[in-house]
Amino acid sequence: MQFPAAQIALIVNGRVEGDSQVSVSSFGKIEEAGQGQLSFLANPKYEDFLYTTAASIVIVNESFELKQAVNATLIRVPDAYTAFATLLGKYQEIMQQQLTGIQQPAYIAGTASYGDNVFIGAFAYLGENVKLGKNCKIYPHVFIGNNTTVGDHCIIHPGVKIYHDTQIGNQVIIHAGSVIGSDGFGFAPQADGSFKKVPQIGNVVIGDQVEIGANATIDRATIGSTLIKSGAKLDNLIQVAHNVEVGHSTVIAAQAGISGSTKIGNGVMIGGQAGIVGHIQLGDGAKVNAQSGVSKSIEAGKAVTGSPAYDYTAALRSQAAARKLPELEKRVKELEALVKQLLSEKV
Amino acid sequence: MQFPAAQIALIVNGRVEGDSQVSVSSFGKIEEAGQGQLSFLANPKYEDFLYTTAASIVIVNESFELKQAVNATLIRVPDAYTAFATLLGKYQEIMQQQLTGIQQPAYIAGTASYGDNVFIGAFAYLGENVKLGKNCKIYPHVFIGNNTTVGDHCIIHPGVKIYHDTQIGNQVIIHAGSVIGSDGFGFAPQADGSFKKVPQIGNVVIGDQVEIGANATIDRATIGSTLIKSGAKLDNLIQVAHNVEVGHSTVIAAQAGISGSTKIGNGVMIGGQAGIVGHIQLGDGAKVNAQSGVSKSIEAGKAVTGSPAYDYTAALRSQAAARKLPELEKRVKELEALVKQLLSEKV
Amino acid sequence: MQFPAAQIALIVNGRVEGDSQVSVSSFGKIEEAGQGQLSFLANPKYEDFLYTTAASIVIVNESFELKQAVNATLIRVPDAYTAFATLLGKYQEIMQQQLTGIQQPAYIAGTASYGDNVFIGAFAYLGENVKLGKNCKIYPHVFIGNNTTVGDHCIIHPGVKIYHDTQIGNQVIIHAGSVIGSDGFGFAPQADGSFKKVPQIGNVVIGDQVEIGANATIDRATIGSTLIKSGAKLDNLIQVAHNVEVGHSTVIAAQAGISGSTKIGNGVMIGGQAGIVGHIQLGDGAKVNAQSGVSKSIEAGKAVTGSPAYDYTAALRSQAAARKLPELEKRVKELEALVKQLLSEKV
Repeated sequence: MQFPAAQIALIVNGRVEGDSQVSVSSFGKIEEAGQGQLSFLANPKYEDFLYTTAASIVIVNESFELKQAVNATLIRVPDAYTAFATLLGKYQEIMQQQLTGIQQPAYIAGTASYGDNVFIGAFAYLGENVKLGKNCKIYPHVFIGNNTTVGDHCIIHPGVKIYHDTQIGNQVIIHAGSVIGSDGFGFAPQADGSFKKVPQIGNVVIGDQVEIGANATIDRATIGSTLIKSGAKLDNLIQVAHNVEVGHSTVIAAQAGISGSTKIGNGVMIGGQAGIVGHIQLGDGAKVNAQSGVSKSIEAGKAVTGSPAYDYTAALRSQAAARKLPELEKRVKELEALVKQLLSEKV
Repeated sequence: MQFPAAQIALIVNGRVEGDSQVSVSSFGKIEEAGQGQLSFLANPKYEDFLYTTAASIVIVNESFELKQAVNATLIRVPDAYTAFATLLGKYQEIMQQQLTGIQQPAYIAGTASYGDNVFIGAFAYLGENVKLGKNCKIYPHVFIGNNTTVGDHCIIHPGVKIYHDTQIGNQVIIHAGSVIGSDGFGFAPQADGSFKKVPQIGNVVIGDQVEIGANATIDRATIGSTLIKSGAKLDNLIQVAHNVEVGHSTVIAAQAGISGSTKIGNGVMIGGQAGIVGHIQLGDGAKVNAQSGVSKSIEAGKAVTGSPAYDYTAALRSQAAARKLPELEKRVKELEALVKQLLSEKV
Repeated sequence: MQFPAAQIALIVNGRVEGDSQVSVSSFGKIEEAGQGQLSFLANPKYEDFLYTTAASIVIVNESFELKQAVNATLIRVPDAYTAFATLLGKYQEIMQQQLTGIQQPAYIAGTASYGDNVFIGAFAYLGENVKLGKNCKIYPHVFIGNNTTVGDHCIIHPGVKIYHDTQIGNQVIIHAGSVIGSDGFGFAPQADGSFKKVPQIGNVVIGDQVEIGANATIDRATIGSTLIKSGAKLDNLIQVAHNVEVGHSTVIAAQAGISGSTKIGNGVMIGGQAGIVGHIQLGDGAKVNAQSGVSKSIEAGKAVTGSPAYDYTAALRSQAAARKLPELEKRVKELEALVKQLLSEKV
């Protein structure tokens, strides 16, 4: 599709400077963009590229002053970066809207149902009593187990596996390869040293506007529900164990893991590769640094780091001191020699 | 399906107190359960919920004394939690038994074979000479490569990928998205700085009653076999490298990784996100704390923590001391000042 | 297939000692190999097995001196291990070459194209405008999104998900379950505490001879490209965030994670479970130890360890000192007592 400058200016509430008939069909960085592409200039250190870029349209700040002539058509807006992001969003929305219909072969159980304007890719699987809202995009190789419900406007990327009885809200995005509702890791030790599986008969409940990255795993509850509340954003390769609760608008970076029954508050930020033990609470707004190992509950608003993790500022101080440890050891050794000398001289 | 109280009492060897005709069809926590659900009371701190629950049946301990009247039918047993877990297990077994037949389209090579009472989901793939035992449940999107054998009563969840020549025992459960038999990470450095692939022509051998979580990866051996012995339980997102051996009834928590050729004994416990270097041994019953980095062999029965990991108790002591390091530094500084003063006064 | 000793000797440029008519069809370790198998002896400590092995053919070093009679046919070469690896490679190449054709059902969009001698497995999905080079092997359940190009001689293992607009070079191997081109983790914080998705409209570009392990995730760029340059080798369960660059012949071990926009040079080695923050540079030949947490750029050729990571040698010294911390604390306490005593005696 082609988008003329005049139409773009309307979307971002901007003012065209140059040829308003010129059109673009895709996006590019200002240092790389070619003809037919739209770019933006927000960071002044990229200004030189503005005068050499082959981009057909460049979005710039209202306040920006040209130092030379430009070939590109400019669109002036209050905030170039925000306007550009808005355009990207609109563009993706349009592309997604166009994706509809059911590719063959797909497996849709007789008791499954779906709303208007859905896309169901080839080799997708909808089990018994699956309910899919309107405008959902179910990519190829997605598995949706029996009795699972998915709200409206959800995007389930290729190869996602959703076990039975899962409940998913509206506008949820799940990236390729993630597994929702696998059995929690529960085994009862037996007298002979072996382990007996504890059946996991709960489910997973996911709120609205949740986004889950690629190849993440969210286990179903032993009994009850593992909860991912509305607005939470989970990155790739994250592990969420059985009966965990993740609060509203909580953000968890890649490869972090949350052990069983831990309750994470709202607006919490968890860094990449952090690990959190089971059966604790993280208060609202708590911050866990990357690679931390959290073994105790954290109060609301507190930040921690380290493995085992504790107060962020104190831990940084200890880490700095640890680097100087060999030197400290040397100083203690010198002191010991001096004190020994003082003691001997005393005699 | 409906299960009347009398039938449930028979299964758990319990005694009905109240209406033995009342029926349930699912399970719930005592604080959440509704009509038609079965719950249990084991922990005395939940006792209040017993008098307000809408559950139709509640399993309680034989010794438990009611303080008020209850609406629910009670089933009294020696140990309420164990009885409840038994019921969950029976329920899942019944559900699994009912799952049989071959959904279309599935790809089953002409030389593949399978036993009685199997389920093969739509879009499942069985390669040449695959042998599947009786009562196996192969979910949609499972790939089973050429010459792989799977024993009896196995459950392979959606999207599991099993490479060629894998051997899997009986009663094995593999969760969605796991990959069994991918190439080990073996590359020979070349004079020009590049790397040449070392072919990985071994396989993976998995014993009986093994359970493997979601999105885990178990690499095939370079030559010979990567072994996961009977009774081992592996959680989600675990990495097992080529030629590793995991012992009987060893338990490995989520996101842990084992490097190549390491031999792990029986009854070992490895915490989440722990990493273990290659070519070492972990003795029977060794314990590795979460997030530890194990760089040396561990004797049988020993526990380690930290990265690099060492003796558990000593490491905890050092971690505690590390937190007080800035304070220790201050004490050394004060000592230095005092000793300097003593030395100067001496003159 | 059967390979007679004479033919094998030709391939590895070796000399047959014994029956040159004897044939093998597979490979085995010298301590385990049976009749019809080929093995090798490179490490002298395995020499005893040479006299007892049931292997039909054993490759040995030219210089090796027999101490007893052997049943196996020997093939003598300058370097037994290298010759054996060469054979494994040839064997796998032959097996791969034989794998051609398109299994049904597969989904191949009308605008997709592919070269000669490809294999496309059942349930594979090729979107619009997908271009596949010659001799590619696309296993079952692979998803290749619209406008993606794949070069010649690539092997894409079962269940790999490649999003739209990805560019993949020649002789690339991607193992099962990996996800290429998922959205980067980009969200703009809003005034109400929620997060708004930043559209990710860039792509992933992968060079030649790259190998990617199982269940890894490589996110597409926000704008521009996430780059994995030629010769890079990535292990299982690795996370590569948006706009990252991974240099030529860089090796990354399992479960490591690279945060957004970080540039990794050529010939870098990154250990398992290491984590690297965003927006930094790792110079050519840098080395990152397993489980390290890299928070600052690393100069070319430097090695680091620890979390947070710093100079390898210094960090090892500090780690060693940390183990003796409780002892150091005791020494300081003793010094304090002595100094106190000296001070009091002075009075």
